[in-house]
Amino acid sequence: IIRKSFYLTKNVEHKGQVDLVTETDKACEDLIFNHLRMLYPDHKFIGEETSAALGSTDDLTYDPTWIVDPLDGTTNFVHGFPFVCVSIGLTIGKIPTVAVVYNPIMNELFTAVRGKGAFLNGSPIKTSPQNELVKALMVTEVGTKRDKSTLDDTTNRINKLLFKIRSIRMCGSLALNMCGVACGRLDLCYEIGFGGPWDVAAGALILKEAGGFVFDPSGDEFDLMAQRMAGSNGHLKDQFIKALGDAS
Amino acid sequence: IIRKSFYLTKNVEHKGQVDLVTETDKACEDLIFNHLRMLYPDHKFIGEETSAALGSTDDLTYDPTWIVDPLDGTTNFVHGFPFVCVSIGLTIGKIPTVAVVYNPIMNELFTAVRGKGAFLNGSPIKTSPQNELVKALMVTEVGTKRDKSTLDDTTNRINKLLFKIRSIRMCGSLALNMCGVACGRLDLCYEIGFGGPWDVAAGALILKEAGGFVFDPSGDEFDLMAQRMAGSNGHLKDQFIKALGDAS
Repeated sequence: IIRKSFYLTKNVEHKGQVDLVTETDKACEDLIFNHLRMLYPDHKFIGEETSAALGSTDDLTYDPTWIVDPLDGTTNFVHGFPFVCVSIGLTIGKIPTVAVVYNPIMNELFTAVRGKGAFLNGSPIKTSPQNELVKALMVTEVGTKRDKSTLDDTTNRINKLLFKIRSIRMCGSLALNMCGVACGRLDLCYEIGFGGPWDVAAGALILKEAGGFVFDPSGDEFDLMAQRMAGSNGHLKDQFIKALGDAS
Repeated sequence: IIRKSFYLTKNVEHKGQVDLVTETDKACEDLIFNHLRMLYPDHKFIGEETSAALGSTDDLTYDPTWIVDPLDGTTNFVHGFPFVCVSIGLTIGKIPTVAVVYNPIMNELFTAVRGKGAFLNGSPIKTSPQNELVKALMVTEVGTKRDKSTLDDTTNRINKLLFKIRSIRMCGSLALNMCGVACGRLDLCYEIGFGGPWDVAAGALILKEAGGFVFDPSGDEFDLMAQRMAGSNGHLKDQFIKALGDAS
């Protein structure tokens, strides 16, 4: 559905694009939820579209819960920029246990099962060996809020971090950013104020299973429901937490 | 060469990576220059590696001149991030006339001949229809200079632009950024203080031939040798120049 709509969206007017995105989002979420409900009628579900329709996100319980973003990278999707994906995570007892992130445009499928490692198109992946912050490539996003206080915080943080790292990337999909760190293309990622748990439920497990760390930008434990995340390869966590602290 | 080394580089130590990059750069530039010299013995050549070895860039003359970046996106290359390319431009009478940008990892070949349109893998491309700055997706880079004055200028400019556009991407290859605007995945691009004419000689023609504009960030005429560029789709040039002016 995403791949088909991705190429369709370039040929429709802008008003039509917005409708198409919403339609694509909903169609994907329905497809995924209906399929999973058939297989696991007792499981719970948290989805971006369902939460948007309800106006709130269901609390995460200890029950097996599928957390789904049917289309991460919506702005990219609208513009035809190829970093878009489906993100599906399963928590059991609130612990991320199964994860799938699929970019249908670049045909990259990232998967992980808790304790069993992480994979890209079936091959094992691991985070980068980089252990010097000054050589690290970091990915983040500026988010969607455009009030002065948020934007100033965002660009001030980037300014301070740029004195300590090699460079920065912004690609428009948090789930793919985490997978990029997981497979060693990037060394660090963080984002504050993203949409909800559907953006990180799968990526967090994939990154951990690839040998990386996922934590709160403050250094506290990662909270799936908090809309704040930072991640690193297996070496840079402490240096990155210090740099994030100095930059805030 | 690039594709082979791209996958090799992930498996070597970091010191080895730097050597490998230089080796890959040089091997590509030699290959391209030797081939073109055989075909066009009277033409001139400007290349990133040759200029680095000389410590300066040859002046651009009215003679037919091939301007080559054998490997744009070096940081991406070292990290295994798939935005890397070869960029080859030909100027005749100082005017960009033939352009090729090839990303061997994603297998995307952008081409243009002056007056004949621009193409991606042989299919015609054109810039986006977006005519509202507030909905535009802009791509830029933070560059490699890390002195306080440059970094403050960079992040202050980004801060001010973010109040006026939809969002920002940073992908690490100026040549591919320009091609991204050319094929409508992105709406705007700019960069101040990049390496040299090899970063923009091909991309500028591809973007123009796709219906876009290439200009100096101040709004002045684009100067291939000035290490300053801005580009837009066919609609946003004036709005973007104003926004860049307000942000500087």
